[in-house]
Amino acid sequence: MRDMLIIDGLQYVNWNRQLFEEAQQSGVNTIHVTIAYWENIRETLQNIGTWNRHFLNHADLIMPVHKAEDILEAKRLGKVGIIFGFQNCSPIEDDVKMVEILHQLGVRIMQLSYNNQSFLATGCYEDQDGGITRFGKQVIKEMNRVGMVIDMSHSAEISTLEAIELSQRPIAITHANPLFFHKALRNKSDKVLKAIGESEGMIGFSMYPFHLKNGPDCTLRAFCEMVGQTAEMIGIDRIGIGSDLCLNWDYSVLEWMRSGRWTTGVDYGEGSAEKPSWPAQPSWFTGAKDMYTIAEGLSAEGFNEEQIAKVMGKNWLSFFEKSFSKSLINS
Amino acid sequence: MRDMLIIDGLQYVNWNRQLFEEAQQSGVNTIHVTIAYWENIRETLQNIGTWNRHFLNHADLIMPVHKAEDILEAKRLGKVGIIFGFQNCSPIEDDVKMVEILHQLGVRIMQLSYNNQSFLATGCYEDQDGGITRFGKQVIKEMNRVGMVIDMSHSAEISTLEAIELSQRPIAITHANPLFFHKALRNKSDKVLKAIGESEGMIGFSMYPFHLKNGPDCTLRAFCEMVGQTAEMIGIDRIGIGSDLCLNWDYSVLEWMRSGRWTTGVDYGEGSAEKPSWPAQPSWFTGAKDMYTIAEGLSAEGFNEEQIAKVMGKNWLSFFEKSFSKSLINS
Repeated sequence: MRDMLIIDGLQYVNWNRQLFEEAQQSGVNTIHVTIAYWENIRETLQNIGTWNRHFLNHADLIMPVHKAEDILEAKRLGKVGIIFGFQNCSPIEDDVKMVEILHQLGVRIMQLSYNNQSFLATGCYEDQDGGITRFGKQVIKEMNRVGMVIDMSHSAEISTLEAIELSQRPIAITHANPLFFHKALRNKSDKVLKAIGESEGMIGFSMYPFHLKNGPDCTLRAFCEMVGQTAEMIGIDRIGIGSDLCLNWDYSVLEWMRSGRWTTGVDYGEGSAEKPSWPAQPSWFTGAKDMYTIAEGLSAEGFNEEQIAKVMGKNWLSFFEKSFSKSLINS
Repeated sequence: MRDMLIIDGLQYVNWNRQLFEEAQQSGVNTIHVTIAYWENIRETLQNIGTWNRHFLNHADLIMPVHKAEDILEAKRLGKVGIIFGFQNCSPIEDDVKMVEILHQLGVRIMQLSYNNQSFLATGCYEDQDGGITRFGKQVIKEMNRVGMVIDMSHSAEISTLEAIELSQRPIAITHANPLFFHKALRNKSDKVLKAIGESEGMIGFSMYPFHLKNGPDCTLRAFCEMVGQTAEMIGIDRIGIGSDLCLNWDYSVLEWMRSGRWTTGVDYGEGSAEKPSWPAQPSWFTGAKDMYTIAEGLSAEGFNEEQIAKVMGKNWLSFFEKSFSKSLINS
């Protein structure tokens, strides 16, 4: 099992050398890291600049993933592969040409909206869901062309279904759980899950407590049962892990994620006035090292070795092979 | 002669399909194109976005040059290779990390200053020349690291000499002429020329009338004599062409080049209140097609075939081989 390819479909970590070391020692081979929420393009370039320095200063521990083969190269070298992603489309501002520019800078995954309405799509916290916008359709075409994954983790239902329909490449929900497992605005209906399955997309299961039945008290067994049920519903090839692991941030960053610049009030997102802060993690998943615990849980649930390998990394790898490859479509 | 590699060390053209066709038919193999003067990073990204569309829409005529081999590839394919360059350091704003980001987006040449003082160096129109600044030293180091050419075409003398001294890679003056040929703030002293020669840098001779003896009335013979004299002074390997060909722009663009956002008045740059507009070109150089006329002029001046080949392109090629290659220096 220690030789298994492990890919985490989303983490949001305030990285430093110690955390890179921990990630590398954890056995995780590649991580999709969030590098923007509400940042405009200028602020995003600064974040990319910071990452460029990380790649230079910690070249012994991490490397950028620009194509699927880089994931295997990272594994061979014993480094952690890093895939850049945005949890919102703020970085492209109002300019479709920024998609290619950000792709040139290494960005490979972008959510069409965070919790709110964006220029492209509706977020899962809005009352009305207008689906994919005019600009959204152009951006989907451009993301398809350059090879940037459309991620609908935080988007509303109609927008998500339309994105699946419009996109010429399969799309991803990098980090969320099924609604049948736990009722939350961020979790996904059977309809969305099935559409993901039929279109050869991917869903990454989240260990963020707000997405779990009974929150931090969710058991590993309940989690793995849910994985099993989803596999039955949409197929073993369409599922992976997107832990949504958040590490080393203070409360102000949670405020930034939730409230950006769009409200002068306080938005608690998935939290509440009583519990505004970062939630406690379930005991069986407190860091990347616990990816093996998940694998063991799946084994106990009756998954065979090949099935476990798929869920823990192989499915993401095949998805990224299709997703990052050169232009499907001309201009 | 029609098989000769031709590289133009600088053009500033308002490109469209017709002009790309003309460039391709002219026999010029690679052009260093200016894509920013006073643009900040956001505006520069827009310019790069426009170029990305050019590369897509005119893929039969042009291709980006990111490494020296791309120049030979462009020649093989019969396309015009395009090297991105800035005539000022405005695009990096106050952020050294933008050097690598712009390099990732294909930029390979940057002037440390235009006519004015910049954050990095002094421009040739200032009264005082403080040399390379603290930030300038950091940027030179970073440009050396990533492989971006330092261009001092519009910089003042002390700044230029210091840049040559500080840089671990040879630097370029992509477009200017010797002061001994024509007295102008933009032309270069013997001291600068010799320092360029000794450090294995390059100077590209300009056909912009303000840099020529007798302006538009300068004869081809006088121009070629000057090339010969410079070759004697600094060596046949250190010289090339940087035509400074400007095409298809209206007067407002000349105003932007000269006055940017730094004055509410009018700055005439190399022009004057009496002759504010674009100057007429010398009759023997009105477009890229006339590069062969230069080559013929050099032949009449007594240059042999190999020498002509060096001046017209081979010297730039060797210079770019050294300049664009991967990191010389770590971090």
